[in-house]
Amino acid sequence: LSLSLSLLPGCYEEYSSSSSSTSRAAGMNGNGPSKLVDPLEDPVPGLGTYEDFNTIDWVREKSKDRDRHREITKKSRQSTVALLHSVSDAFSGWLLMLLVGLMSGALAGGIDIAAHWLTDMKDGVCLIGFWFNHEHCCWTSNETTFQERDRCPQWQSWGELITGTSEGAFAYVVNYLMYILWALLFSFLAVILVRAFAPYACGSGIPEIKTILSGFIIRGYLGKWTLIIKTITLVLAVSSGLSLGKEGPLVHVACCCANILCHLFTKYRKNEAKRREVLSAAAAVGVSVAFGAPIGGVLFSLEEVSYYFPLKTLWRSFFAALVAAFTLRSINPFGNSRLVLFYVEFHAPWHLVELAPFILLGIFGGLWGALFIRANIAWCKIRKSTRLGHYPVIEVLVVAALTALVAYPNSYTRMSGAELISELFNDCSLLDSSQLCGYKQVQPLADRPAGEGLYTALWQLALALVFKMMITVITFGMKVPSGLFIPSMAVGAIAGRLLGVGMEQLAYYNHDSFIFKGWCSPGADCITPGLYAMVGAAACLGGVTRMTVSLVVIMFELTGGLEYIVPLMAATMTSKWVADAFGREGIYEAHIRLNGYPFLEPKEEFDHSSLAVDVMRPRRSDPALAVLTQDGMTVGEVEALVESTHYSGFPVVVSPESQRLVGFVLRRDLLISIDNARKRQEGVVSASTVVFTEHALAQAADAPPPLRLRGIMDLSPFTVTDHTPMDITVDIFRKLGLRQCLVTHNGGHVVFEDTEEEEALQVVHQTSFTPLLFYS
Amino acid sequence: LSLSLSLLPGCYEEYSSSSSSTSRAAGMNGNGPSKLVDPLEDPVPGLGTYEDFNTIDWVREKSKDRDRHREITKKSRQSTVALLHSVSDAFSGWLLMLLVGLMSGALAGGIDIAAHWLTDMKDGVCLIGFWFNHEHCCWTSNETTFQERDRCPQWQSWGELITGTSEGAFAYVVNYLMYILWALLFSFLAVILVRAFAPYACGSGIPEIKTILSGFIIRGYLGKWTLIIKTITLVLAVSSGLSLGKEGPLVHVACCCANILCHLFTKYRKNEAKRREVLSAAAAVGVSVAFGAPIGGVLFSLEEVSYYFPLKTLWRSFFAALVAAFTLRSINPFGNSRLVLFYVEFHAPWHLVELAPFILLGIFGGLWGALFIRANIAWCKIRKSTRLGHYPVIEVLVVAALTALVAYPNSYTRMSGAELISELFNDCSLLDSSQLCGYKQVQPLADRPAGEGLYTALWQLALALVFKMMITVITFGMKVPSGLFIPSMAVGAIAGRLLGVGMEQLAYYNHDSFIFKGWCSPGADCITPGLYAMVGAAACLGGVTRMTVSLVVIMFELTGGLEYIVPLMAATMTSKWVADAFGREGIYEAHIRLNGYPFLEPKEEFDHSSLAVDVMRPRRSDPALAVLTQDGMTVGEVEALVESTHYSGFPVVVSPESQRLVGFVLRRDLLISIDNARKRQEGVVSASTVVFTEHALAQAADAPPPLRLRGIMDLSPFTVTDHTPMDITVDIFRKLGLRQCLVTHNGGHVVFEDTEEEEALQVVHQTSFTPLLFYS
Repeated sequence: LSLSLSLLPGCYEEYSSSSSSTSRAAGMNGNGPSKLVDPLEDPVPGLGTYEDFNTIDWVREKSKDRDRHREITKKSRQSTVALLHSVSDAFSGWLLMLLVGLMSGALAGGIDIAAHWLTDMKDGVCLIGFWFNHEHCCWTSNETTFQERDRCPQWQSWGELITGTSEGAFAYVVNYLMYILWALLFSFLAVILVRAFAPYACGSGIPEIKTILSGFIIRGYLGKWTLIIKTITLVLAVSSGLSLGKEGPLVHVACCCANILCHLFTKYRKNEAKRREVLSAAAAVGVSVAFGAPIGGVLFSLEEVSYYFPLKTLWRSFFAALVAAFTLRSINPFGNSRLVLFYVEFHAPWHLVELAPFILLGIFGGLWGALFIRANIAWCKIRKSTRLGHYPVIEVLVVAALTALVAYPNSYTRMSGAELISELFNDCSLLDSSQLCGYKQVQPLADRPAGEGLYTALWQLALALVFKMMITVITFGMKVPSGLFIPSMAVGAIAGRLLGVGMEQLAYYNHDSFIFKGWCSPGADCITPGLYAMVGAAACLGGVTRMTVSLVVIMFELTGGLEYIVPLMAATMTSKWVADAFGREGIYEAHIRLNGYPFLEPKEEFDHSSLAVDVMRPRRSDPALAVLTQDGMTVGEVEALVESTHYSGFPVVVSPESQRLVGFVLRRDLLISIDNARKRQEGVVSASTVVFTEHALAQAADAPPPLRLRGIMDLSPFTVTDHTPMDITVDIFRKLGLRQCLVTHNGGHVVFEDTEEEEALQVVHQTSFTPLLFYS
Repeated sequence: LSLSLSLLPGCYEEYSSSSSSTSRAAGMNGNGPSKLVDPLEDPVPGLGTYEDFNTIDWVREKSKDRDRHREITKKSRQSTVALLHSVSDAFSGWLLMLLVGLMSGALAGGIDIAAHWLTDMKDGVCLIGFWFNHEHCCWTSNETTFQERDRCPQWQSWGELITGTSEGAFAYVVNYLMYILWALLFSFLAVILVRAFAPYACGSGIPEIKTILSGFIIRGYLGKWTLIIKTITLVLAVSSGLSLGKEGPLVHVACCCANILCHLFTKYRKNEAKRREVLSAAAAVGVSVAFGAPIGGVLFSLEEVSYYFPLKTLWRSFFAALVAAFTLRSINPFGNSRLVLFYVEFHAPWHLVELAPFILLGIFGGLWGALFIRANIAWCKIRKSTRLGHYPVIEVLVVAALTALVAYPNSYTRMSGAELISELFNDCSLLDSSQLCGYKQVQPLADRPAGEGLYTALWQLALALVFKMMITVITFGMKVPSGLFIPSMAVGAIAGRLLGVGMEQLAYYNHDSFIFKGWCSPGADCITPGLYAMVGAAACLGGVTRMTVSLVVIMFELTGGLEYIVPLMAATMTSKWVADAFGREGIYEAHIRLNGYPFLEPKEEFDHSSLAVDVMRPRRSDPALAVLTQDGMTVGEVEALVESTHYSGFPVVVSPESQRLVGFVLRRDLLISIDNARKRQEGVVSASTVVFTEHALAQAADAPPPLRLRGIMDLSPFTVTDHTPMDITVDIFRKLGLRQCLVTHNGGHVVFEDTEEEEALQVVHQTSFTPLLFYS
């Protein structure tokens, strides 16, 4: 007791000297607080950085940035150059957003055009030039009328080209075979490129981006090779006809762009927290270009992927999302001034009675979402645990062949997912000649009885539904870029359209029954099957991803009217509730857990009633907590202590007797500093004392010079008391983005624990780093 | 040292006994942790509640709710009734949202209709029935054509009614006088009702709601009397012709509805944090009905007013905002199936060159915003400090008379703010007969040269601009309900329309100059003056309130197209940057500061580099920190200690010598508990020992029984070390919603401080409560 009290006057001196200069991050630079260093420089290389597959310390990163900012502001008062630097620094965030928007928008446009071209390549070739897609080829030809613009002599199917006629079984077989061959070629190229150059380019990327945004580091996941290979293979995978979409991977592509562009600005290159703000905005950009929905994109980033989303990021995300949407629109990949293939305009109102089928669609979406997640995760586990996982190329080829084989005969599975959705969303106008509009013409602009064409279409759609539901389960998770949005929406849109047509026929033939009487008189256009398709698509996507508001807003931006928000809302909410009843995880959380990424779900409530003392590490049966003392250990002792444990950091206490907490040192910083000192600093040997105090104690004259490490010590480690309930502790971890937290009990005494029983925290424990580190 | 160590084994016993049962909030109920009580009941009345004008402890409230939830979940497994209770509890939030949406939508519709009627009352009366407004009166009459539907014999102006003719100077004078008289009557009624029944009903209410949402308590601010009086006086104030809008107060009205409806559900009635979640959603509802913009409303709540906005609140806000918008639309107050008077549909595209005038409007908006805030705050300070503040009724009457006197002769100031904006936003169609469309008819659907009518209109608009700018400064802040949205938008819309017409004429007469060549050929409709008005309105509103994203989204919902987002965005961003250069506070923050509410701005960065030790209370020159010991003080000593200080809470330490922190007790809880014990518990006298430990020490046989207060002690007070930089401390305060924080230094030793130098924290200090409470 006397020892600790005798130290206190010295500590008071620290207050006065440190209050003017120290700050948490400046102290990280390996210099004592008495000598203020430029926080922009890094004297010991590697100090303050992180290893791969580790979690960042948000508080430290934000602190570092604040110090940087303060430094620049201070300097800006001194000279004009510094002032200009300060202004450019302030605007660099906006400039970066502009660049991210432009680059992502341009890439998305390129992907759209290339995928369109390659998809048509499976069917035939343009004789004017092979680089034209079907539509463009016939536009260029100028010989066709507006009605028949998809049939022109310049575009020949493979069968026509080879057999000389477009009719007959032989031409059909040739077409069929060429379709399968191209599909195999595209998928083979995709999987080979991914395996050879960028293994991270596979999958949708959203689970990993969620994890990265929560603070985890996966080097190379957002690198230039991933970007290049993902862009190319995404086009190939989409064109191969596999049941996957490009919408999810576009988020990954946008994040890669953002990460690469971050290297242009010191502010974002050197700070992991700042870079994650940019990545959050990039996620918004990805959805903005995928669906042409800038506001929906921002809400998607906020609701689904982001972890730390301050208001500043909201503004910037919005800006970047808009820039990207406008870039994409200037490229005009679909030739209709629209951002997406399935922009829709409905005009007929809906009636309150229709809420019943809409909610039914919601239930279907929820059931399908829950079922899909279970089946997909089970399949992925089989892939991981059996020999199947060793042959990804063969797996992709088999699935691609199977898909092409089954899909070709049915026109609704042969067309791409986006085209299918576009056709299903579409309301039948008078001139529409597609099978889905095969009504008997009784009265225009009204509900009509179904004709032969429509019945055929319904059968084909039902078959397509079953096929899509099954093939998507085994497709998602293969080693090619694959998004889930389009296949999920397609499943929902088919189900919705079937129900919509059913309702329409029911209303037509029973317009006098009590249900339809009063709002659906004969000759009125009271049921819009396209709207049902849209509601179904939203419900299924909601069931799989558990998005709600962002999904409704995306759909709202597709229709551009408040009118249909209530049906969409009713369906997505029902879908979420139904799906949640079978398991609270969305597909992305399920994949995060499957891959064992450390992720502390920000949405979930922590339901256990344990205290910090119950989950901290080491447990009571473990050896006592390894601590450093502030001036009593030699370099050799410290090294031995670090070697003997696997903890990622060590509390520094006043003395072994008093155990009063002084600060916290990270293992990595400690090792780097000692290593550096041994190499560069003269006289530092194993017998040198390691000193964490401001002023070293008097030493014998022949003793080696002490190694002063106060600079790398965190003087303000986070502490909670041992009685703090775990829900509050988890809240602190989430909200402040902590890496570890020390547990104290009335001051000293050493215990040092980590978590195992708690489910949410168990995830955190699976990493190489131990983020929860308690000290009592 | 030996003392503190000897205590530790006992503390280990605590771990094992408490880990199974204790939790923070359960411990609040005045019982030891060994006896678990129902957290839904409150054994000592008043314990765990707050006094008026105090700040809530978010962590405690959220903890309480989690315990409640846990309890219900546990019980639900035992019986069917409890299961039903659990289900109804889970859905009560959504039900509440539905009710809030319905009630707010209905009230907004009623306000719209009543204000419309009373506004028309100033001009004349309907002979069929005085309860018809002008438009409705002429509809009912059925004698007029569609073109002249605002002129019908049934509607007579006051001049016509009294003089018998609608022509001539005499009739004009009578009309003028009646207009002033009605304005005086309405404003007199408004101010008298506010003063007599609900003083909180005045103003816009948004600054106070921001403060309440951040955790402050103002009893009665959201009560039923405020609701009733605000609804009535809002109608009167708007109808009186004063330069104010109903949009801001609608947010207050919606929050009152939410607060009153909260009383129906125990979950929300008893928990201040949960209730604030509902209020956040209600703010979204308010904007949703004010502008017919549900998404914009949610973003407004998120960006502008809310403090704690979890994702769950986002979903619910969205739901409530939609319900309210639909309720309002079913009421159809404007008779056009639109939610607002100024819904617009533009069709002409804009050109990149036009960004220059749009940015110019942004600069104007920013300058006007900064100027308005300064002038209005200066005026409010004069009102507060001089005798002017003692005569609010006379002030309102004088301003109303002045407004009516000046406004009547100019048709653009005579009409209501919303009508003015509607007219300015409107694009001139061919049949439009208003003065603003007084072009010379050269070619339809193209830019045309201005005619006589337009020139007159421009002059009147310029005068209206000057008048609106001046009168709004003195109107906002008077003792009547007054919103700022409409007057700000009106100023911007006038400026924008003036610039738009100017641009149009410039383009018409110079279509060959290098600026217009290429995109503005003669005969093309290349400039839309209505769009300029819209951009100007957004810029001015942005300058005053500093909203950005939510403002753009509101405008986006008014136009319903992505097309005009870039102009709006450019203008609002410019406006924000320009206005921020003159002072970072928006009008609401400025009023919060003017009124001295405690508010820790969540957006602002904390720029100072001080440490916690520099700002904590007491300072070094003050008397030492008052602390309680865990088992060494008597009831009398504790009471004396509490009396001698003004602190709102006291740390509990192991003993005066060791000063090791055990927990924290709130002053209010301490006083209530001691008071309660003296009344109810036998044998508790001044000489009784106050015991905070689990197990009381052995006492002499004749000593009075100890008073056990462990139950009211917070066992997990938040602590930071003395070296923690203030920016991190402020971050912790904001993110966790703390009420106080203790500062520790290597364990014990007592200092106890608060903030004074730091600007952001100074605000916090102005309350009766001392939210920053440090302990070293």
